[in-house]
Amino acid sequence: MNWLDNIKWDAQGLVPVIAQEQGSNDVLMFAWMNREALQKTAELGRAVYFSRSRNKLWFKGEESGHVQTVHELRLDCDNDVVLLKVTQQGHTPGIACHTGRHSCFYSVLKDGVWTATEPVLKDPESIYK
Amino acid sequence: MNWLDNIKWDAQGLVPVIAQEQGSNDVLMFAWMNREALQKTAELGRAVYFSRSRNKLWFKGEESGHVQTVHELRLDCDNDVVLLKVTQQGHTPGIACHTGRHSCFYSVLKDGVWTATEPVLKDPESIYK
Repeated sequence: MNWLDNIKWDAQGLVPVIAQEQGSNDVLMFAWMNREALQKTAELGRAVYFSRSRNKLWFKGEESGHVQTVHELRLDCDNDVVLLKVTQQGHTPGIACHTGRHSCFYSVLKDGVWTATEPVLKDPESIYK
Repeated sequence: MNWLDNIKWDAQGLVPVIAQEQGSNDVLMFAWMNREALQKTAELGRAVYFSRSRNKLWFKGEESGHVQTVHELRLDCDNDVVLLKVTQQGHTPGIACHTGRHSCFYSVLKDGVWTATEPVLKDPESIYK
């Protein structure tokens, strides 16, 4: 049996994916993959997601240069969530978020308000020319 | 505007949630919440998920005693994924997984095979009596 057949794909043929930074263990982002994206991720050793809004493969970093090198693929106990251990390329510290921040999870709930807590490391306008 | 209104709930009224261990930064599990679950999580300071299979609130730890104390709630840049910083109660080291393991993400892809890599810390039969 192919390892891709072990995945419980959802009704749209997708699986949720968490990208976690190797070393720091920071959770960088969350996205989705279809079968082709997951296969390419393993094949190329870089994160390839499926963009639900654009309805096509999304080679993370193709525009920004912020490629994610994949060190390890993990699967959860229900076979329906994938965890990637990655190194974020193109900038130090790594920038995973389209807002120019390290992680997409920069909003913290404080006194009932979502509050941005992490610095913008690079102006998004200079990331996406 | 209420902080719950900032969330982009999916077509089923749910949001994906990642539980990450405070300190180690280990990703423990992935689950879903509806509005009531997220509100209760913030209110009680413990993780309350929505079980899609049982179609009701799931007070994590209600059977196992493996309650998750919530230190922080985070939201991603698209307002459609929640990240919890938690401490896993009831056992040291913490057991988040129903298989008795620390994390649900214990399967690693090795040479094309998903391979269990983390020890069972407690027999599931003694967790769920």
